[in-house]
Order: sequence, then structure tokens, then C-alpha cells
Amino acid sequence: MGHQTTGLYLDDLTVGAEFTSEEYHVDEESIIAFAREFDPQPFHLDGEAAKATFFGGLAASGWHTAAITMRLLVTTGLPLADGVIGAGGELSWPRPTRPGDVLHVVVTVTDIVPSRSRPGRAMVHTQVDTLNQHDEPVQRFAGRLVVGSAPPAG
Amino acid sequence: MGHQTTGLYLDDLTVGAEFTSEEYHVDEESIIAFAREFDPQPFHLDGEAAKATFFGGLAASGWHTAAITMRLLVTTGLPLADGVIGAGGELSWPRPTRPGDVLHVVVTVTDIVPSRSRPGRAMVHTQVDTLNQHDEPVQRFAGRLVVGSAPPAG
Repeated sequence: MGHQTTGLYLDDLTVGAEFTSEEYHVDEESIIAFAREFDPQPFHLDGEAAKATFFGGLAASGWHTAAITMRLLVTTGLPLADGVIGAGGELSWPRPTRPGDVLHVVVTVTDIVPSRSRPGRAMVHTQVDTLNQHDEPVQRFAGRLVVGSAPPAG
Repeated sequence: MGHQTTGLYLDDLTVGAEFTSEEYHVDEESIIAFAREFDPQPFHLDGEAAKATFFGGLAASGWHTAAITMRLLVTTGLPLADGVIGAGGELSWPRPTRPGDVLHVVVTVTDIVPSRSRPGRAMVHTQVDTLNQHDEPVQRFAGRLVVGSAPPAG
């Protein structure tokens, strides 16, 4: 499963297919840079200030974890020919991403629902788990993707 | 409702309370910069290449819209004393954010569920709608937040 590494169309996907991404190293500088722009709170900006907070130390914004997850899907995790186009999904962060973590993503196809209005297109339901170097989930995303069939051979 | 602008604790929140953020201007440069780092696909990187895709023109990554939404919550939209700490939620992108869009966020408290294990803490359920300059939703997020009570006076 998941050995094809580029150019997948709808007809190449089956329920239960599993894909694994490359790894992504998260450092303190990138956690702080993301937080400055998008989530400027003490527990994402400053390791000392973070100690007295809910997180007990510097933690990446959950949205940073989500953005890294997308990068891993696009670059290696889910090689769809027409791109990874998300419609939405259910997101949770069981634990924060920490400085020094090495993340990877495991994607499992959980359902394929053909479009009624657009033949050759489907909503592909996926379980997208983002795991740290201890294989602990830092994010779980039950995501819905828009995927189309290959163009007719011609 | 929602006129208090800083330092809210659990006891300041009620179901139905509504908060509105400031505005955020999205330009082509920031869409492309985010995509280069986190979502490097043609429809997020290049207006010309995007024309032939699902999106029909340059569109922000949904995760960029999500990150901007978080910024708006943290800076003005949801002035929680201990910060905006998300546990997860259900996310959808009804339409993409486009270059030139001006976004704002409207937050409604939909439920407050006290923690059984941690007195003085609750899971606050919110509906977080991110709207463009036409008041059309570019993101809807039914998000769960961890919110605590004020420390005892004394």
C-alpha cells in the first residue's frame, strides 16, 4: 500500500490505503517565528514565560503543527496528481509539538464518497495522524479531500 | 455583548456571547509566502498557473486562512486572560481566501462544559466564523477551547 509516490488519481485510491510522509524537524526559531506572525501568545513565543502557563514550556501553535502537516502531505505524504485540496475536517491536538521534535504524517483512506453532481469526482475521507519522534500523536485530523479521476486518455 | 476587550475568565463567558475581531488584509505576497513554506501547490503559488486548476485563480491555503483566524482571535477577537488555547474542532472552508480579501472573525460561545477532573476549568465550545469583505464565510470552525476561572482574589 502507498508505494506509488507520484500522480495518484481517484481510481488509484482504495479504502484502507496508507501513506507515510518524510520527516520534518521543528526548532525553537521556527516555532517562535510562526507564533509572532499568527499566534502571538507567551507559551508560543518565550520558553521562560511558557513555564508558568498551561503548557509548562515552549509549545508550537497548533496551527503551526497543522501547517507543517500540510507541507508533509503536499511534499511526500499524499502524492495526488491534481493536488491536496481539503474541504475541511475534524482536528485535535492531543499534545503540543515541542522544540526539537521530528514529525511525520501517516495518512489512511477511510472512505470514498462519489460526488452526485460531478461525475469523476469524490470526497475522499482520510485519517491524517501527525506523529512525533516517539510515535505520539501531536495532531489528529479526520480530513475530507476533493479528488478527481484521471483525464481521459486521448 | 462582548464589549469587554481584555482579560476574560471562564466566569465572564456565557452561552450566546459574541465577539468580533479587527480586520486583516490579505495580499498576494503573503499568500505566496505562506504557500512556499507550508502548502507549495500551483493554485497557492502562481496566479497564472492557478487559472487552470480547481480554484480558477490564486487562492490562499486553507491553513493560511486558519492561521490568520488564530491571529485575529489572539489579537482582538477573543480577549481571554490566560490565552486562547484550542483543543481542536471541526473545520471547513466554504470558499477560498483570495488576494485583496479583508477578513474578520466573529466568535459565538455555543456551550460551556465544566471539567470533571479540574474544578475551575471548562471546555468552551465556540463557533468561529471567518468572513471576507462581503460577509461571506471563508472558514467555519466549531472549536473547543480550554478556559479557566480567575485566580482567587487575595
